[in-house]
Amino acid sequence: MTEHHSEIRRLGTALRWADVVIHAGVARWVEVPGDVSDDFSGQVRQVFQQIDGTLQELGTGRDALLQVLIYVADLSHVDQLNTIWDAWVIPGSAPVRACVQAGLGKQCLIEMIITAAVPK
Amino acid sequence: MTEHHSEIRRLGTALRWADVVIHAGVARWVEVPGDVSDDFSGQVRQVFQQIDGTLQELGTGRDALLQVLIYVADLSHVDQLNTIWDAWVIPGSAPVRACVQAGLGKQCLIEMIITAAVPK
Amino acid sequence: MTEHHSEIRRLGTALRWADVVIHAGVARWVEVPGDVSDDFSGQVRQVFQQIDGTLQELGTGRDALLQVLIYVADLSHVDQLNTIWDAWVIPGSAPVRACVQAGLGKQCLIEMIITAAVPK
Repeated sequence: MTEHHSEIRRLGTALRWADVVIHAGVARWVEVPGDVSDDFSGQVRQVFQQIDGTLQELGTGRDALLQVLIYVADLSHVDQLNTIWDAWVIPGSAPVRACVQAGLGKQCLIEMIITAAVPK
Repeated sequence: MTEHHSEIRRLGTALRWADVVIHAGVARWVEVPGDVSDDFSGQVRQVFQQIDGTLQELGTGRDALLQVLIYVADLSHVDQLNTIWDAWVIPGSAPVRACVQAGLGKQCLIEMIITAAVPK
Repeated sequence: MTEHHSEIRRLGTALRWADVVIHAGVARWVEVPGDVSDDFSGQVRQVFQQIDGTLQELGTGRDALLQVLIYVADLSHVDQLNTIWDAWVIPGSAPVRACVQAGLGKQCLIEMIITAAVPK
């Protein structure tokens, strides 16, 4: 055990991955909808609810978001995403955002990679 | 307002996203070409010009680039990208780079996610 | 030369990219298999071996991994990936992980973008 190992904090450690990894004041995590039987809008709302839950667990809020990288299974869904997104982000405190189409897991229509600042 | 909120600095805050988010000495941002009617080389040159502008605004230069994740709409364009890229990066101070093909917005042929160090 | 430039450390600087860029206690790098004539499992094993080599060079180990973003050329390979992945990561110290399908370079079946904590 070297000193730097104690600097890494993980939430929700499964065998395959951690739900959240926190290091040097930055939290990184990935969200996919818990229930992929939902339609696109429903999946987006699930992901945002999950992000809100994680931010709360981290003791912070949406204005702590630094970067959100979004993968959609179908680019034609981006207008729907934007409507929900615009109502969700905090005006003046929105993160950097990228959104591209990629191949996602079975029935999954959206996946987000989140970077957020956390209180030290 | 908790203390960490003041640690986040944003440039160009629109409703939907910030142009640049700076936190803990690291700037994150996303570039797509401003004019997507341009051909691939033109779009790449636009993106590089935009990155240079942001680096200047941050008070730094190309040797501050840490990581550039590139999405191209068509992998067959990568040779053209490399030619322009090689002339743009600073020898000995190039960032980490990944480049994959993904589905991009209408007519957009290239998108870059940039991470750079900024003077504290 | 401003002060912050000295804070960036690079390993393996080629003209086009650095193999690894280290800044503020975080290392970022990208791995593709050195030999893309190998099959999928072989390519994954190569990438893990290369990551292990880099972690060793950084003076740390797999429990320092913060985030691994994975691109596969074919989502049907994910089960094979998971089997090798699960045996590779350290239980309780797995990183955040995302895995999507994207278009990769000639014959390349897997690409990983790695973020790891390094001893300061």
